Amino acid sequence: MKLWQKETPIDQQIETFTVGNDYILDFKLVPYDCLASQAHAKMLAKIGILTEEESARLVLELDKIAEQAKAGIFKILPEQEDCHTAIENRLVEKLGELGKKIHTARSRNDQVLTALRLYYKDALESCQESVTALSTSIERFVQKYGQIALPGYTHTRKAMPSSITMWGGAFVAAMQDNLSLVDASMNMIDQCPLGTAAGYGVPLEIDREFTASELGFGRVQENPVYAQLSRGKLEATMLHTQSQIMLDLNRFASDLIFFSMPEIGYFSLPTDLCTGSSIMPQKQNPDVLELVRAKYHSVFACEMQLRTTTANLISGYHRDLQLTKEPTMKGLEITNSSLAIVTLVFERLSVDETKCKEGLTEEVFATEEVYRLVAEGAPFREAYRRVAGRYKK
Amino acid sequence: MKLWQKETPIDQQIETFTVGNDYILDFKLVPYDCLASQAHAKMLAKIGILTEEESARLVLELDKIAEQAKAGIFKILPEQEDCHTAIENRLVEKLGELGKKIHTARSRNDQVLTALRLYYKDALESCQESVTALSTSIERFVQKYGQIALPGYTHTRKAMPSSITMWGGAFVAAMQDNLSLVDASMNMIDQCPLGTAAGYGVPLEIDREFTASELGFGRVQENPVYAQLSRGKLEATMLHTQSQIMLDLNRFASDLIFFSMPEIGYFSLPTDLCTGSSIMPQKQNPDVLELVRAKYHSVFACEMQLRTTTANLISGYHRDLQLTKEPTMKGLEITNSSLAIVTLVFERLSVDETKCKEGLTEEVFATEEVYRLVAEGAPFREAYRRVAGRYKK
Amino acid sequence: MKLWQKETPIDQQIETFTVGNDYILDFKLVPYDCLASQAHAKMLAKIGILTEEESARLVLELDKIAEQAKAGIFKILPEQEDCHTAIENRLVEKLGELGKKIHTARSRNDQVLTALRLYYKDALESCQESVTALSTSIERFVQKYGQIALPGYTHTRKAMPSSITMWGGAFVAAMQDNLSLVDASMNMIDQCPLGTAAGYGVPLEIDREFTASELGFGRVQENPVYAQLSRGKLEATMLHTQSQIMLDLNRFASDLIFFSMPEIGYFSLPTDLCTGSSIMPQKQNPDVLELVRAKYHSVFACEMQLRTTTANLISGYHRDLQLTKEPTMKGLEITNSSLAIVTLVFERLSVDETKCKEGLTEEVFATEEVYRLVAEGAPFREAYRRVAGRYKK
Amino acid sequence: MKLWQKETPIDQQIETFTVGNDYILDFKLVPYDCLASQAHAKMLAKIGILTEEESARLVLELDKIAEQAKAGIFKILPEQEDCHTAIENRLVEKLGELGKKIHTARSRNDQVLTALRLYYKDALESCQESVTALSTSIERFVQKYGQIALPGYTHTRKAMPSSITMWGGAFVAAMQDNLSLVDASMNMIDQCPLGTAAGYGVPLEIDREFTASELGFGRVQENPVYAQLSRGKLEATMLHTQSQIMLDLNRFASDLIFFSMPEIGYFSLPTDLCTGSSIMPQKQNPDVLELVRAKYHSVFACEMQLRTTTANLISGYHRDLQLTKEPTMKGLEITNSSLAIVTLVFERLSVDETKCKEGLTEEVFATEEVYRLVAEGAPFREAYRRVAGRYKK
Repeated sequence: MKLWQKETPIDQQIETFTVGNDYILDFKLVPYDCLASQAHAKMLAKIGILTEEESARLVLELDKIAEQAKAGIFKILPEQEDCHTAIENRLVEKLGELGKKIHTARSRNDQVLTALRLYYKDALESCQESVTALSTSIERFVQKYGQIALPGYTHTRKAMPSSITMWGGAFVAAMQDNLSLVDASMNMIDQCPLGTAAGYGVPLEIDREFTASELGFGRVQENPVYAQLSRGKLEATMLHTQSQIMLDLNRFASDLIFFSMPEIGYFSLPTDLCTGSSIMPQKQNPDVLELVRAKYHSVFACEMQLRTTTANLISGYHRDLQLTKEPTMKGLEITNSSLAIVTLVFERLSVDETKCKEGLTEEVFATEEVYRLVAEGAPFREAYRRVAGRYKK
Repeated sequence: MKLWQKETPIDQQIETFTVGNDYILDFKLVPYDCLASQAHAKMLAKIGILTEEESARLVLELDKIAEQAKAGIFKILPEQEDCHTAIENRLVEKLGELGKKIHTARSRNDQVLTALRLYYKDALESCQESVTALSTSIERFVQKYGQIALPGYTHTRKAMPSSITMWGGAFVAAMQDNLSLVDASMNMIDQCPLGTAAGYGVPLEIDREFTASELGFGRVQENPVYAQLSRGKLEATMLHTQSQIMLDLNRFASDLIFFSMPEIGYFSLPTDLCTGSSIMPQKQNPDVLELVRAKYHSVFACEMQLRTTTANLISGYHRDLQLTKEPTMKGLEITNSSLAIVTLVFERLSVDETKCKEGLTEEVFATEEVYRLVAEGAPFREAYRRVAGRYKK
Repeated sequence: MKLWQKETPIDQQIETFTVGNDYILDFKLVPYDCLASQAHAKMLAKIGILTEEESARLVLELDKIAEQAKAGIFKILPEQEDCHTAIENRLVEKLGELGKKIHTARSRNDQVLTALRLYYKDALESCQESVTALSTSIERFVQKYGQIALPGYTHTRKAMPSSITMWGGAFVAAMQDNLSLVDASMNMIDQCPLGTAAGYGVPLEIDREFTASELGFGRVQENPVYAQLSRGKLEATMLHTQSQIMLDLNRFASDLIFFSMPEIGYFSLPTDLCTGSSIMPQKQNPDVLELVRAKYHSVFACEMQLRTTTANLISGYHRDLQLTKEPTMKGLEITNSSLAIVTLVFERLSVDETKCKEGLTEEVFATEEVYRLVAEGAPFREAYRRVAGRYKK
Repeated sequence: MKLWQKETPIDQQIETFTVGNDYILDFKLVPYDCLASQAHAKMLAKIGILTEEESARLVLELDKIAEQAKAGIFKILPEQEDCHTAIENRLVEKLGELGKKIHTARSRNDQVLTALRLYYKDALESCQESVTALSTSIERFVQKYGQIALPGYTHTRKAMPSSITMWGGAFVAAMQDNLSLVDASMNMIDQCPLGTAAGYGVPLEIDREFTASELGFGRVQENPVYAQLSRGKLEATMLHTQSQIMLDLNRFASDLIFFSMPEIGYFSLPTDLCTGSSIMPQKQNPDVLELVRAKYHSVFACEMQLRTTTANLISGYHRDLQLTKEPTMKGLEITNSSLAIVTLVFERLSVDETKCKEGLTEEVFATEEVYRLVAEGAPFREAYRRVAGRYKK
């Protein structure tokens, strides 16, 4: 077996090592970088670095690139490293000297930050929609089955009476809190870094308010040093939000896997969300839910990577920051697809009313018995001890 | 050596294992549990479970306990496990049958949650004050030294001209973002769980709005299942906020350790924040800053513990949740003391203007040279290539 | 409430911040530091820095300190920071000028490393014993109940027939692998750092083989730079080992919590390892097992802290390394006590043969049915499809 | 922008969600699964389930598949999910009924485990070679420059005299320890799971020693429950080893980035391992080293994911385990390529003897001065205080 051979020439080894899969990841950033470059070109015209006509030609060419990207035709070659070079190369190829002017008053650093933030903002909007869609789906489920009572568990043991309304409502409440986290993340992301260049600004009078407003940012990220210092940090809060959403999905999936076991059977999983076994012909396994559960850990690992990469480093850009891109994009995408799948689960999930009723065995009502005694005048601790006596082994 | 011997009797082994250091941690929670129990007693009177006189006697006794706790006299014994038992025991001891009534309509679970959230709210308020105090301290520092120019670094190498204003401003901006995270955390914490009992409510009509408002909570956490499901989750967002603050302090400490090296020397550390070596007589080491740097990782580890403990578990209380208490309290306290120390650092830090000036060597201005050529009409990429030629080895 | 007040004078704030709880943690290190100092004193005599008589007086005094530590009389004051200063101060106090000579040819850095490694070696030996004790306990359990058949689960659903022998054997096999990890950790820890001083050796000819052999180390850690570079790294492998052990205990506890649920009931937990509820009088909760499960995450968080603290730092000692001490000691201690508790659990655990038998419902044997058809000549995939047909909903 | 649209039909959504990128990852596993299936076919002949001729035909066809995989011709389609289905489908397509027999006496579960372990063993062998190659490269570097003295640093400040021999030797010693960790990992991985089926064995007498020995495994993993319980665990130890290697590379990269700064300049980086800036024409940035530094965190995040995914789960296979595959493979591959790059760095790195000499300023020798006084008879603490006096500010 020679899977691990190392006969690659040195230059290619270094290229592979430094570029990584950026040229693939960046495919998703092309439209965002085009938008940012258009705003930048307009601003350059506004401050007199470009003529209006030059700016218009750049904007037009960037429109074409964005369209080609949408159609899947625009390519980023490994030797171009990233979408930014690929786009600038295309501009030079099509527009000659004019193409060489687009990088005036910016650096690769703020260009990357801007494209990413635009992408993040779209991702967070989509996340907000997905969380809302899930809430709606749960609410519909609760409307359908909410009146059914079933045992609530503590310590993985029956505890007190609960209901589908109470159970489903918990996840709706969780999603409410998650929406406020999405808002907080959006608020942090929504600051425009364009014009901070390599983290120390540019020796030109530029109009940062203009580009920020053109791109729909809530505000300018004024301090150029902070633009770099906050890379990884802003992403971390965004991924924290995603992890929190995934944690709720993880707990939800854990509940469904558990409460749909034949031994318990309160819930029935839709068969098209179950999978068989390659050796055991009788099996109906909750694979989709197990993957939802496991994907929490994937998203969490993405977040972890962000949280440790920049620690112990001095301020200012380091190439280390490039490696924050993949886990951030991955974390956002896994969360988004998991939300969609769980929304689907809720649409198809059903409750087995008979099993729920059978589950409500006598001891589940022991606390109610205590409170009957309290109502008759017994101090709580006394009533408790009296009822507890009946359950002593 | 017999440090690891295991001659402890079994019951004591189990007690030690299950109680852990809760009885020590809980010392800080006594005043908060007293407040919560007072609100609870008043509510019980309001709904007719207690008489007004009974309620008043409980409130009075709880005042005494809180005072004794403040004076360091109130004790929690290991066999009492936690502050809640210690307090209830005291009430029974002093008030007899009446003491046995205080636990009506609540469970240890919501009692713990309520005391913790009151503690968290105080901690977050203190955190907000500390972050603000640090910002003020940096701003004063910037006012004193801000006009001084020094090289900005990227890739740990000189890049472009920066200034103390720009550098300090980055940390002020970071603290602004942190304040918005503290707000978001507070918003999540500020919901009152009292009355959710063991996660399935109580079979009594209670007045949850009353206790929530009595305790100053912003709102009632309505869903009892969510009250337990959110344990660890709400704490995680709070500790995420603390970690984010600590990350900025970590980066700040990294900057100061680096830029105060004799070889660079832009900053001078106050000697009382430095430490010597036990073998090298010449050393002045930045120990305080190194500890700030390292404490990011302590707080981060606390957060990690919260983030993994509850995953893969079904809903409902599990004893596992007890172990979220220590890392949460620890994370809050380390962050608070680190903020205070860094505030102190900024009060005493000085800038070496001569070294900063010497650091601004010719190549730091290469980008400005490019823009001079751009101003003369050269396309950016051309100007760049021309200046770059001078620096080719 | 004034819990978070900051009226502490500055010097004390700094002392508290830098010393942390080292002076408490270090109490456990006193005997190890005494041993190391004795070996060092003997070596200093061997190379002629001390007279034999001086060395003997130091050794004698260190014996007394170790004894006082064992008796709980020897104190480390916060202002002494750590056990090393406390011990040296005592030597100076008792032996005058001679006490001031003990620090010749060493630094605080290698002194700390040496005491810690001796402590670690004891801890790992204890760990090895505890793992072995647990294995023995499981084997006894298997001998008692091993013939009982019960359903094996995949995807949290019944899959195929299993047995107590097979289930218990899995944990014995896990402990075997853990023992090999303990060995690997021990091998890495078992190198003597004494004499590497602050990471660059000492300008004296010292006899490192002598001290290493005197202290029972397997070998000398020759390279002084590596002595510091490996701090945190060696500890991380040791804690990885502890986490791996804890992961198995976590899975074991998860199994017991699950399979002892009344709805399933294959196992019966001993009541003295269960706990009641403060609101529900009927409850018997598996708190001890839940804490075992949760403590995996505590140990894992300790390991995490080690794994991120030193990253991105240049070589050479940093004060950051001080903060690797607490999580390492904590991780070792939690693992040790968890092993003891689980050993106890196995001693008292029982199997409910009736419930196991009832659990072996017909579909658990579906795979055996397939193989009956295979034995009759059907290709496996055909046989599988035929049997699967019977279970289609 | 419609990047986040969700117009995918439901079945495809579920397929995408459950298959993930397994069908891509699995491309690397094809040769290993072919090997394992060949051993399995031979065993089935040995125990009389297949004829020798049937076994031979399967082996031959599997050879062809492995060859086609090597040539990049063999494809795994998304709807086939993984290499195991793709291979079995091909066998059925080519060999009809015979192809349907290959899955006798195994499950997808042990088939996956076996292919992965064979892959891991190759990866660990490659890792061992790469670590050894790096050691050799460092040793050659030390031979070339080792006599050069330079300052050793503690607390990021000059401390005592060091040398290239001492510095390089630290990394060689680290790699020695890493090799022992690779051994320990290999020892854990080197157990054959084939025949454990879905974690509860197969109802047939099979010859597990035969397949294990045929595949070159050191031993049979006897316990079927442990085969599944150890999934994620064995991988975690392997990735711990990779993280430890990466941590040393991270520290090494941190050293080089720091000590090659123009302000210090002890090392000169080869220009083909440096990169320019898009805005600053003078820059030579150590991007390759920064990526090595950052990749520690990537590998660490992979390890983290493994460490948390399986916790809190009961024993037995869960689909969650599928998600341990990607981080494991990724962690192994990043480490392998990083080792190759750092080996290259050492081949091209040079030491600036003049700068090293200039760095050895007077205070670096303060400790030697102390020992001169000790040699003249002063107690160490006295000598230390005397020299320290000269450095008081």
